[in-house]
Amino acid sequence: MDFTATKALFDLPEGLVYLDGNSLGPLPRAAAARVAKAVTEEWGGQLITAWNQAGWMDQPMRLGDRIGRLIGAEPGCVTVGDTLTIKVYQALAAALALRPDRRKVISDTGNFPTDLYVARGLLETLGQGHELVTVAPEAIAGAIDEDTAAILVTEVDYRTGRRHDMAALTARAHAAGALALWDLAHSAGAVPVDLAGIGADFAMGCTYKFLNGGPGAPAFIYVSPRHAAEARPALAGWLGHAAPFAFEPDYRPGAGIARMRVGTPPVLQMAALEAALDIWDEVDMTALRARSIALSERFIDGVAAACPADVHGLALASPRDPAHRGSQVSFRHSQGYAIMQALIARGVVGDFRAPDILRFGITPLYIGEDEIDRAVATLAEILGGSLWDRPEYHRRATVT
Amino acid sequence: MDFTATKALFDLPEGLVYLDGNSLGPLPRAAAARVAKAVTEEWGGQLITAWNQAGWMDQPMRLGDRIGRLIGAEPGCVTVGDTLTIKVYQALAAALALRPDRRKVISDTGNFPTDLYVARGLLETLGQGHELVTVAPEAIAGAIDEDTAAILVTEVDYRTGRRHDMAALTARAHAAGALALWDLAHSAGAVPVDLAGIGADFAMGCTYKFLNGGPGAPAFIYVSPRHAAEARPALAGWLGHAAPFAFEPDYRPGAGIARMRVGTPPVLQMAALEAALDIWDEVDMTALRARSIALSERFIDGVAAACPADVHGLALASPRDPAHRGSQVSFRHSQGYAIMQALIARGVVGDFRAPDILRFGITPLYIGEDEIDRAVATLAEILGGSLWDRPEYHRRATVT
Repeated sequence: MDFTATKALFDLPEGLVYLDGNSLGPLPRAAAARVAKAVTEEWGGQLITAWNQAGWMDQPMRLGDRIGRLIGAEPGCVTVGDTLTIKVYQALAAALALRPDRRKVISDTGNFPTDLYVARGLLETLGQGHELVTVAPEAIAGAIDEDTAAILVTEVDYRTGRRHDMAALTARAHAAGALALWDLAHSAGAVPVDLAGIGADFAMGCTYKFLNGGPGAPAFIYVSPRHAAEARPALAGWLGHAAPFAFEPDYRPGAGIARMRVGTPPVLQMAALEAALDIWDEVDMTALRARSIALSERFIDGVAAACPADVHGLALASPRDPAHRGSQVSFRHSQGYAIMQALIARGVVGDFRAPDILRFGITPLYIGEDEIDRAVATLAEILGGSLWDRPEYHRRATVT
Repeated sequence: MDFTATKALFDLPEGLVYLDGNSLGPLPRAAAARVAKAVTEEWGGQLITAWNQAGWMDQPMRLGDRIGRLIGAEPGCVTVGDTLTIKVYQALAAALALRPDRRKVISDTGNFPTDLYVARGLLETLGQGHELVTVAPEAIAGAIDEDTAAILVTEVDYRTGRRHDMAALTARAHAAGALALWDLAHSAGAVPVDLAGIGADFAMGCTYKFLNGGPGAPAFIYVSPRHAAEARPALAGWLGHAAPFAFEPDYRPGAGIARMRVGTPPVLQMAALEAALDIWDEVDMTALRARSIALSERFIDGVAAACPADVHGLALASPRDPAHRGSQVSFRHSQGYAIMQALIARGVVGDFRAPDILRFGITPLYIGEDEIDRAVATLAEILGGSLWDRPEYHRRATVT
């Protein structure tokens, strides 16, 4: 794949250097027409018959398999729907039911907060004395014991890009009889993932970041074929029923992953996601990863040379070794928020995470050497001239 | 409001009589442009900044209040997101936590199956000996006792259109110290609802039926201001946190209804829903109800005259008294499926629900006397000539 050609597949504002694809991926050019077709021809023209005619009903499984290829899932083991928070809840509830005699869930303090919130919400709802144990990221392996039902870990840290060793942690969990649940929010479309190969039990992720599925695009969930027949969906919705349109009074879970569907799928969001996956179908994740590392190294080296830490106070927050890093590069700076605003004002868009993290997503489909070099030069210009020190760059927006 | 003029606000296929707005409402003409704007200008042009600039983040509360007016909710008590199944789970989990010493949930056998599935899934997950008691619709009041934590009832039956007396059942629940949870799937935009007036505790519904929000449009949830400060969200997601972007390790529920938000809202679906609500903002629910009853009576009387039950075997499945009926009219016939296919083939679209129900949604925004009369004439023609008795009308589609 020629990564210098793929930028043309996206509708990016002229001259913008968009390094925030780890938060919201840009618009695939084909998505506008695909969504318009879903609205006008399918909804408008076919109305209720579109559930069959336009294939809306089976779309979550079809899209799931296309995402599955990118994360090393077996066919028929991924479905799309709801939000990542909901899918974490479903996976953890199913996992705990598979380990009824164990009371611990292990996670790390670097996990995205919603995973921790929803896990604690579930444990509290269960009221059976479960405990969520959060340890430092490097202490997970050591915290797994014979009372551990599951580990719930996000592979790539949303702030620093620090990457867990999924294979090693999964093996460690299994050795102790625990299940491994992986949040792939910053992995899917960012780094190669091999769920089947490492024997992951459950996984879930979102599609609006690296996968470019659009704002509010649905989440995905993976259930290992080992658990497909016994995993009990805590959120037992009609579209997860074995025969949704028989309207039976009692719930009979659908076959395999189908039972992890809940309610009516978001048809318009799925249309946008479909257009995004048309691009991903052509992507080789190994090649993408190599390109991501090359661009990330260029960025880190460029910033080190142009903005020396001892002069400007900018410190690399991401691991220096690419093997331990996802597809983002983060720096720390006490004036991180204002610096990011100054960057955005100059057309270089990353984002800020409190208290002091500047994040830059490295997304080879639409970022190349030119964009990296421009980001480095702009950052150097801002730091060199203290150009961030203006009142307008210190005003906080609601969503940062 | 002149209901003969509102049909022009919808993009309906020429000549189609669409009596399935109780399943999927048609496309508001303005929705195509609104969604295209969300895709191209907001997602494409503003990218991540659209969360603030385009108001994506607050949209669930704004849309919630606009729906709130149609269902008699106090301002600030409704939010939009997820699916109805998820919102039922949230409401029931919150309700049970408010009545910790009670073990029964009462529903009826006419409830939409997903409500029963998700309720049982929750009770099983809780593992605290709760019981879902389902009784005949008319037996709910009598089944409420001192051990009843909540009633979970759908106001309008999805098959027959039979309508519960929300005020009376809510009062009966309260008299026994129980909470009243109302599923408004077939009520919102169909009949006047007065949540605040009757003192409902929780309510939820979907927006893709009578409200015309589009396929997979998000659900809504109402929490009475009496419970807003104590209702505990079992699905504790980051967007329900008091400060989502502070990324605090511990969950602090947002103020009031905001805590019932879970994950990232479906921005493209919300854009379509917004266009639909632009129409609803102008609708007086009392006038709409009067028009719905007039059209429903015309349909029932017309069918009775043109297709006598003793000749054609078509029996009214809906209550004859409009006060006990929502905004749909249903008939039973042993050949219901084939008759519906024959109707659809002639451009009169209702739908079929097993084993023998033909459903027709009465939606005054785009259905008038002409459409009703054409539906009656087409049904009479099909029954009079046994025109349904063709192999192609007996072939079942996946989604019926």
